[in-house]
Amino acid sequence: MNTVDIPRLREIVGGKNIKTDPLDLYVYGSDASVYHAAPWVIVRPDNTGQVQKVLAYANDAKIPVVPRGGGSGMCGQTVSSKGGILLDMKNMNRILEINLPDVYCRVEPGVVDDDLNAALKPYGVFYPPTPASSRIATIGGEIGNNASGVRSVKYGATRDAVLGMKVVLANGDLVTLGSHTRVEASGYQLEKLIVGSEGTLGVVVEATMSFVPIPEFRCLGVANFDSLRDAGNAIADIMASGTIPSMLELVDDVAIKAVNKTMNLGLKEVAASLLFESDGKVKEAVDYEVKKMEEICKKNNGADLWYSFDAKEREQIFMGRKKLFPALSQFDASMASTSLADDMAVPYSKMADMAAKIHEAAEKNGIIMTAYGHCGSGCMHTKIMMDTSKKEQWEGAQRAIAEIYEYVNSVQGTTSAEHGIGISKAKAFKTEKHDSLKMMAAIKAALDPNNILNPGKLQQAPDNWVTATNLRYAVNS
Amino acid sequence: MNTVDIPRLREIVGGKNIKTDPLDLYVYGSDASVYHAAPWVIVRPDNTGQVQKVLAYANDAKIPVVPRGGGSGMCGQTVSSKGGILLDMKNMNRILEINLPDVYCRVEPGVVDDDLNAALKPYGVFYPPTPASSRIATIGGEIGNNASGVRSVKYGATRDAVLGMKVVLANGDLVTLGSHTRVEASGYQLEKLIVGSEGTLGVVVEATMSFVPIPEFRCLGVANFDSLRDAGNAIADIMASGTIPSMLELVDDVAIKAVNKTMNLGLKEVAASLLFESDGKVKEAVDYEVKKMEEICKKNNGADLWYSFDAKEREQIFMGRKKLFPALSQFDASMASTSLADDMAVPYSKMADMAAKIHEAAEKNGIIMTAYGHCGSGCMHTKIMMDTSKKEQWEGAQRAIAEIYEYVNSVQGTTSAEHGIGISKAKAFKTEKHDSLKMMAAIKAALDPNNILNPGKLQQAPDNWVTATNLRYAVNS
Repeated sequence: MNTVDIPRLREIVGGKNIKTDPLDLYVYGSDASVYHAAPWVIVRPDNTGQVQKVLAYANDAKIPVVPRGGGSGMCGQTVSSKGGILLDMKNMNRILEINLPDVYCRVEPGVVDDDLNAALKPYGVFYPPTPASSRIATIGGEIGNNASGVRSVKYGATRDAVLGMKVVLANGDLVTLGSHTRVEASGYQLEKLIVGSEGTLGVVVEATMSFVPIPEFRCLGVANFDSLRDAGNAIADIMASGTIPSMLELVDDVAIKAVNKTMNLGLKEVAASLLFESDGKVKEAVDYEVKKMEEICKKNNGADLWYSFDAKEREQIFMGRKKLFPALSQFDASMASTSLADDMAVPYSKMADMAAKIHEAAEKNGIIMTAYGHCGSGCMHTKIMMDTSKKEQWEGAQRAIAEIYEYVNSVQGTTSAEHGIGISKAKAFKTEKHDSLKMMAAIKAALDPNNILNPGKLQQAPDNWVTATNLRYAVNS
Repeated sequence: MNTVDIPRLREIVGGKNIKTDPLDLYVYGSDASVYHAAPWVIVRPDNTGQVQKVLAYANDAKIPVVPRGGGSGMCGQTVSSKGGILLDMKNMNRILEINLPDVYCRVEPGVVDDDLNAALKPYGVFYPPTPASSRIATIGGEIGNNASGVRSVKYGATRDAVLGMKVVLANGDLVTLGSHTRVEASGYQLEKLIVGSEGTLGVVVEATMSFVPIPEFRCLGVANFDSLRDAGNAIADIMASGTIPSMLELVDDVAIKAVNKTMNLGLKEVAASLLFESDGKVKEAVDYEVKKMEEICKKNNGADLWYSFDAKEREQIFMGRKKLFPALSQFDASMASTSLADDMAVPYSKMADMAAKIHEAAEKNGIIMTAYGHCGSGCMHTKIMMDTSKKEQWEGAQRAIAEIYEYVNSVQGTTSAEHGIGISKAKAFKTEKHDSLKMMAAIKAALDPNNILNPGKLQQAPDNWVTATNLRYAVNS
């Protein structure tokens, strides 16, 4: 099965850019998901020409190619479930252009999100789709997953920021998609189709992305709730009020306790807290929006209301949210924090029910689950806390997930708001998109007839790929 | 060639929904473009089931189907250049749902834009992509062309508003795409691919679109310029300043004169005027942004500066812009105002050069051209004023267009910002997208293997389809 021609690849990218050491292959067999499957070889192209040649070779030889950015994907998108070449894009990490008059930057796919923002900061602008993993996530990976984050409620997701890109297709052809303009109505906007395609349609080798000015004022507010439902209702009321927060985050009691335990922040352990932020160039407008959100929280029984324009005070409060994911991972040594059903989205009016459903499904199935998320964009995160070595907990988690997705589907929600589908959400995705799977398969076959680009993901992912051998955690029977 | 089975179609949609009268066919052979080609039959389905049956039949019989909304397309998108069935969607014009808590509406494709906005208004919200043709343009047509308009600089184009849709594919299959949520990262977002596909990939039968609150304050400003270049520089400076206008419109001297002549508005006949608007919920913020734009205009030698929050005063000023297109049509009885190269987009820093290029190409080739547009989104409109019966003017126009598109391509601009490609811009589009045309063709073939859906448009459009028989105007030799 492993028929890859290493000398040929070495010729293309040079010896230093090829890894075949079993330890490297093992490490690159994982991302931030629960899965593991080692690639046959790791290839790190230095430039577009090399990507073209690697793909042309792989296409001829019908060898799978999995493009990988920072490896922070939570759903197994970059796990080499069919083996083949792991195309590590980290060497292509140059910021090619920061064009202030035309309000865009051009970057290679391996640029880390935080590095891009550090480069933009001196010019008073920022790249807003930024996920929580921005310290390691690359722009290429973010494009693959249509990444978004805390500020996407106001500033949009990755797809909204993409103006154009250069992509290497399965056969090695290089194509330029989109333009350097803000609005386009020139036929199929394929640069937008590539976003969220998880490396299955082409390998992004350059992207032109818009940015926005750093607002002069930010104001962060907090409200505590004795009931998760009240917090959910406050979210819906805020979004229906026409207010456009720059951030609207929910954290539930499980999340608050985890943060307190690992960071000793002394947060009040209520049923739920909302963090709401407004930003802008005019203080009066920012003030107006925050007060409006505060008022809506009050009406929904929000308490301990607090807000501040001060950067230090804001940072202190926001740190708890920012460190939530690592906090959950360290919450209990006997339990792993797993990403299995982690970023559903539902319409705003269903946020309260969604949160209730998560807690109900967790309790019913003997596991612990958190409900938190970027609720202003309809996204509800959850993490499952369980002892993965216990079969009954693993199976309980699977049942809980099925119940949660059944609810999501029943309210025209979606399987993933921002992390993508990969392997972990394939079953729910296929249920949700059942009548357009054929369309997706037709497009995939048209653009990648030999099925070399990240095969076995999205509509191709088997419902139950997980066995003892490709799970990072042992599940005992 | 015309092998369409009328009795079969009559069975599907009923006799009242079939038109075969030669006069009807003649009228439906045109849209707002310069082209004419009559369909074989006009079919007006009442519901989704009928659309499915019509398409299943046409697919079996390999008969072209051209979906049509309001017929306001300027590039020949709905001209039946290959004959076949003209699928007039105007009977499917119900607003199915206005969901305020979840901030979306669901509509049938035949809903006219102004009618949707009239229905939304009592709830204090509006649907913003609205093109100038909103009195006749339908949501289905706007989806087909990724329509946008004066407010798109702040509120986005049609693609940005689409959350989900139901589409009938070439074979009659009905698929549901997208969701009812704000953010999605669930694989190929095909609802976004359908936007701008000009009816070539499927027929939209239902769309879920987001809306936004009507702002409490609007302030419109005007600045006059003695030089088109100064006005262009002001546009670029405004957009690079981080200001987000709710409107930023350029009109040149040709346009101002046309408006004065036909509407007697007494506008000062300067080289160029800029209209700039800000809107929002907080007056201080709106005031701040308008003053900032005014200041930038001043720095670029703008004069006669004026602004107002007053609705009546704003309407009076804006009317000139709104009626510009009909004014150009009536400007000179001996000349037609033709839409041939009418909505290029370029990066902001190139707006001044673009405007200069338009005037230069017009003068050089013995025709009159206007430069105006929604410059905040990079879109530069132009209309060609010429006596189409004079061959030298027709040929001059073709040369001018070629020169203009050469410039657009040289600065990574795009052929169409908001009107689409259709037939008139096929040549420029194919030059611009040369290396991704194969990708487009592969997707088209995958989703419509019998090539029945609006064949001969976009990448399929011949460069020089125009002959005496399919032009609405006579071109004498």
